[in-house]
Amino acid sequence: MVIVDLLAMFVFGISGGLTAVRMRLDIVGVAVLGTVTGLGGGWLRDVLIGDVPPPGLSDWRYLTAALLGGLITFFLHPAINRLQPLINVFDAIGLGLFSVAGALKATEYGLGPMPATILGLVTGVGGGVIRDVLAGEVPTVLRRRDLYAIPALAGAGLAVVGTRLDLPTVLVVVVAAGVTIVWRLLASWRGWTAPEPFHAARSE
Amino acid sequence: MVIVDLLAMFVFGISGGLTAVRMRLDIVGVAVLGTVTGLGGGWLRDVLIGDVPPPGLSDWRYLTAALLGGLITFFLHPAINRLQPLINVFDAIGLGLFSVAGALKATEYGLGPMPATILGLVTGVGGGVIRDVLAGEVPTVLRRRDLYAIPALAGAGLAVVGTRLDLPTVLVVVVAAGVTIVWRLLASWRGWTAPEPFHAARSE
Amino acid sequence: MVIVDLLAMFVFGISGGLTAVRMRLDIVGVAVLGTVTGLGGGWLRDVLIGDVPPPGLSDWRYLTAALLGGLITFFLHPAINRLQPLINVFDAIGLGLFSVAGALKATEYGLGPMPATILGLVTGVGGGVIRDVLAGEVPTVLRRRDLYAIPALAGAGLAVVGTRLDLPTVLVVVVAAGVTIVWRLLASWRGWTAPEPFHAARSE
Repeated sequence: MVIVDLLAMFVFGISGGLTAVRMRLDIVGVAVLGTVTGLGGGWLRDVLIGDVPPPGLSDWRYLTAALLGGLITFFLHPAINRLQPLINVFDAIGLGLFSVAGALKATEYGLGPMPATILGLVTGVGGGVIRDVLAGEVPTVLRRRDLYAIPALAGAGLAVVGTRLDLPTVLVVVVAAGVTIVWRLLASWRGWTAPEPFHAARSE
Repeated sequence: MVIVDLLAMFVFGISGGLTAVRMRLDIVGVAVLGTVTGLGGGWLRDVLIGDVPPPGLSDWRYLTAALLGGLITFFLHPAINRLQPLINVFDAIGLGLFSVAGALKATEYGLGPMPATILGLVTGVGGGVIRDVLAGEVPTVLRRRDLYAIPALAGAGLAVVGTRLDLPTVLVVVVAAGVTIVWRLLASWRGWTAPEPFHAARSE
Repeated sequence: MVIVDLLAMFVFGISGGLTAVRMRLDIVGVAVLGTVTGLGGGWLRDVLIGDVPPPGLSDWRYLTAALLGGLITFFLHPAINRLQPLINVFDAIGLGLFSVAGALKATEYGLGPMPATILGLVTGVGGGVIRDVLAGEVPTVLRRRDLYAIPALAGAGLAVVGTRLDLPTVLVVVVAAGVTIVWRLLASWRGWTAPEPFHAARSE
């Protein structure tokens, strides 16, 4: 489980690093954006449920994973840019794992189904939101047209339901994260979108 | 008291939803901005005083109120836009209630008069600040010319003084929130402003 | 030690106030930006390590120091602008003191060397990051070309090492903060920069 977490943090770290490289930040900016993108979602969740200091800050392995993601981008970004489709897949995996892990941890800390599901979403997308705010942009998760938050909510919600039904954790994680990952990738490849307020259709 | 809180969260949720509709976000963006605008001020206060998980996250009624404010905006925004003057009134009511409730809760948690007053302001304007940061804008409370933060500070300060004098809570809430609401509405209708650094006068 | 802290908060408060004056905010905006710039780094650290309410919020002396920095800027900003070189020096001093104090406090709360160093950086630059996000800008610490975060990390790291070696606290603070301050000032005067991703060199 820790290895899976580390991988997700590493991949999200790369996504933060890529943003920083695109903004032409120096190595400090790349390292900082990589780290907060990889760990920020977990920090938000842990501060909100009261698990402080957050493991994503006190455990050097997590710090290192996210930081490495950022630094590797600093040195290898042209190669990584060519790997964009692969990054997309890893990002979906990270989203699925973080959302499910966040919902499970919130449940463990005594939160009800609805708050736990929301904290799953916070864990999954929080790092990216912090990345975008620091980059001076409206968070991608709000702007993007293809589905991102809804698959995360679905996975988090399934994880909560599964735990409440006392199903085995491994099964819950695999199924719930799997739903998020597959749904997210299909949405990305096929351009599935969420409904928009109707004025958009009229005036554009 | 809970009903009053729910109403304030609902109205702030509408204000977040309106921002999201104006930005042409999809239903996810409208729901997220509505929720954080309705609940964000309380989350900030609760994280700062150590009441975690914040009731505004663990209590599904609060979540639902803010979320409903966002979602109703998604479906009814043209009607709501026509109700702008009414929204203004409700926003002032929300500001008054949140500022006073925030100051009282901070006092309960042992904070002195000055910190408690500031936490009242944080509770009152925090949701809107998060909304504006996520929307990529300088927070309205900083930019706006008509008074907004000062009436909130006044209400929060009055609430702290009233509690310290052991006056009955209902009286304190009604008077303190009333001062904020009336002052805020008068400022909005009459264009009352706060002093600006003097260069503004010279160079504009 | 408290006096040194107060001075650093006051100077950071001025820097927040100057940003607000440049944005033509009114007195509320100047006071708010001054306060969060002076205290925000400590708030972030304290929320992350679980020392809530943060002393930077519950202690009226800290609140007053940061607020005064903001308000003095409101009234005296033309004079302060002429003092820019002096502000630069004080900003370096604030950075050094905050980074070292942050790292020491995190160590006291049981965090390991790597997290404590990072929390030193958070304490040193956090207020400025919040200031810039509220001002709608990419944080200066990410954008600036001359070294800022690296001297802060160096001071925080030295403080952690010194404490672990059981050296006397005064010595640790003086040497570690001194390294940050001198390095930061030299970087500012001589234009020392950190490495950038190589495309920058190619395409500019």
